[in-house]
Amino acid sequence: MSEKNLQVLLARRPVGRAQESDFRLVESEIPRVGEGEFLVRNHFLSLDPYMRGRMSDAKSYARPVDVGGVMTGETAGVVVESRHPDYKPGDKVVVHRGWQLYSVSNGEAARRIEDDRLPLSAYLGVAGMPGETAYIGLLDIGQPRRGETVVVSAASGAVGSVVGQIAKMRGCRVVGIAGGPEKCRYTVEELGFDACVDYKAGRLREDLAAAAPDGIDVYFENVGGEIFDVVLSMMNPFGRIPVCGRISQYDAAEPYPTRNIGSILINRLKVQGFIVSDHPERRKTARKDLVQWVLEGRLKYRESVVEGLENAPRAFLDLLAGRNFGKQLVKLV
Amino acid sequence: MSEKNLQVLLARRPVGRAQESDFRLVESEIPRVGEGEFLVRNHFLSLDPYMRGRMSDAKSYARPVDVGGVMTGETAGVVVESRHPDYKPGDKVVVHRGWQLYSVSNGEAARRIEDDRLPLSAYLGVAGMPGETAYIGLLDIGQPRRGETVVVSAASGAVGSVVGQIAKMRGCRVVGIAGGPEKCRYTVEELGFDACVDYKAGRLREDLAAAAPDGIDVYFENVGGEIFDVVLSMMNPFGRIPVCGRISQYDAAEPYPTRNIGSILINRLKVQGFIVSDHPERRKTARKDLVQWVLEGRLKYRESVVEGLENAPRAFLDLLAGRNFGKQLVKLV
Repeated sequence: MSEKNLQVLLARRPVGRAQESDFRLVESEIPRVGEGEFLVRNHFLSLDPYMRGRMSDAKSYARPVDVGGVMTGETAGVVVESRHPDYKPGDKVVVHRGWQLYSVSNGEAARRIEDDRLPLSAYLGVAGMPGETAYIGLLDIGQPRRGETVVVSAASGAVGSVVGQIAKMRGCRVVGIAGGPEKCRYTVEELGFDACVDYKAGRLREDLAAAAPDGIDVYFENVGGEIFDVVLSMMNPFGRIPVCGRISQYDAAEPYPTRNIGSILINRLKVQGFIVSDHPERRKTARKDLVQWVLEGRLKYRESVVEGLENAPRAFLDLLAGRNFGKQLVKLV
Repeated sequence: MSEKNLQVLLARRPVGRAQESDFRLVESEIPRVGEGEFLVRNHFLSLDPYMRGRMSDAKSYARPVDVGGVMTGETAGVVVESRHPDYKPGDKVVVHRGWQLYSVSNGEAARRIEDDRLPLSAYLGVAGMPGETAYIGLLDIGQPRRGETVVVSAASGAVGSVVGQIAKMRGCRVVGIAGGPEKCRYTVEELGFDACVDYKAGRLREDLAAAAPDGIDVYFENVGGEIFDVVLSMMNPFGRIPVCGRISQYDAAEPYPTRNIGSILINRLKVQGFIVSDHPERRKTARKDLVQWVLEGRLKYRESVVEGLENAPRAFLDLLAGRNFGKQLVKLV
């Protein structure tokens, strides 16, 4: 391996909207493999909204990335060298070691892909963290019942698209919320949602009321802000709101002032935040079902792939701005 | 019975802050008892914050009181005539038939007091709906564990005082939030709370941080508005917020703009609205424990009693304004 490693570092903490100059691409040596470690040549980097949170040092559920440190993130790749008993060269793996071409792992937050019948990239999306997030949040917290109305925001995204399709399997009426007619059309025509509301059309309340005429029983929350507030006012008694993400708020200068909190009491709602890594025991079950559903053609997914680690910052900013479509990946080979 | 009945009617729907002219006291005939009904001479009327919601026709969990109809509410009294197989003259009962001296009931939302070792009034408070509300909300939704910090607002009130005392029995650090030094002193010195924050002192955030140095694991929500927003920002990971009431918002012209919603995701909180009447199977257990704890001296309570139905509207407005102390009752005999 005469090649060098490439890494994307956090150059500085964003103030308000993140920008390209908050990142820095650097060349470095390929890391040495210590005892109990293995080296991965990464093929795909996953870009996910949660990474925005790690760029800030505001209190959150995980440590922030250090300024000058490698940006956090999952990659899928192939083991090229190993001094770890459970991994051998040629193993396909997912590791959480950040935005770089080569990663050394001691096995923590890593997993070998056992059932590799899907393309490698799928294990970062539909059959990886985003798919598991959709599965656990919808089924364990949302608990949708046949005939209920399930609304999901960021509906064409890596998580939202899986939420809606699982809810359809459960016999629910599924309404997406997405930005723009193309994404909306995709959720209805390709994924089988019953309806989709384009929040950019400026008639969110009216369009959502028309799409969910019986009210909303489960709202899978990915965006926060105004959409959360409007949905709150349309929830049915005993509704459930799994809170998975708040992408509209990550770059916001001021937090959105939510006014319909009263609905939580009036409708006896359960609003619950969750993070997939808090539910390790459920992830394996989720993954097994998700792979199976993809193989059976019951679960569809879409990827946006940009080429080259140097384009990761731009692609990440596009993701935060809703300019991507489906699961956002960076191809590293 | 040559006496007449007295009733308080809803004269009109309040706009913003409710006032005495929204009520009307009228004299009427004592109602006749039909087949399957019984007549109660009420001794105490319970005044509770939820009644404010019933005066409005905004969408809520229960039908509003009709303009010109009898104000809704529970009373405790004695059966004076019965054509109902399960009730006989002399039975002590609680009925939900509104603000009046005499009520006819068909047994719906009524109950005979089986264990009458407490004074009659207690079955409208500590051993009635407010006590059951505290018990079910704290234990079933809040699920406090030994060593955790439990915060309760409206801490000296009918619900809050029971919440805090049960949390103490469970081995928690208990912090009340109440209006004024007298109420705060009561919760600490009489009820055994560890600390109490006087929200009227104007240092809510600082005082609460000092009183809950390890953060907040369970917040029992009775008040809404700014207090909810501040508490959200101090919740610990995996905290629980049973939402029981929002008294600060019932009379508000505009809903409070809540800004710390992000804490729900960051801390994976569970925020859940509930109403005691949704949990009939638990109420009996709750009542049994509450009566027992009062008899054992482990659960204390305080009542404010005004005399005469004609004073009920004023006492109710005082309750909404936080000018009462403990369980608010109207004595009707």
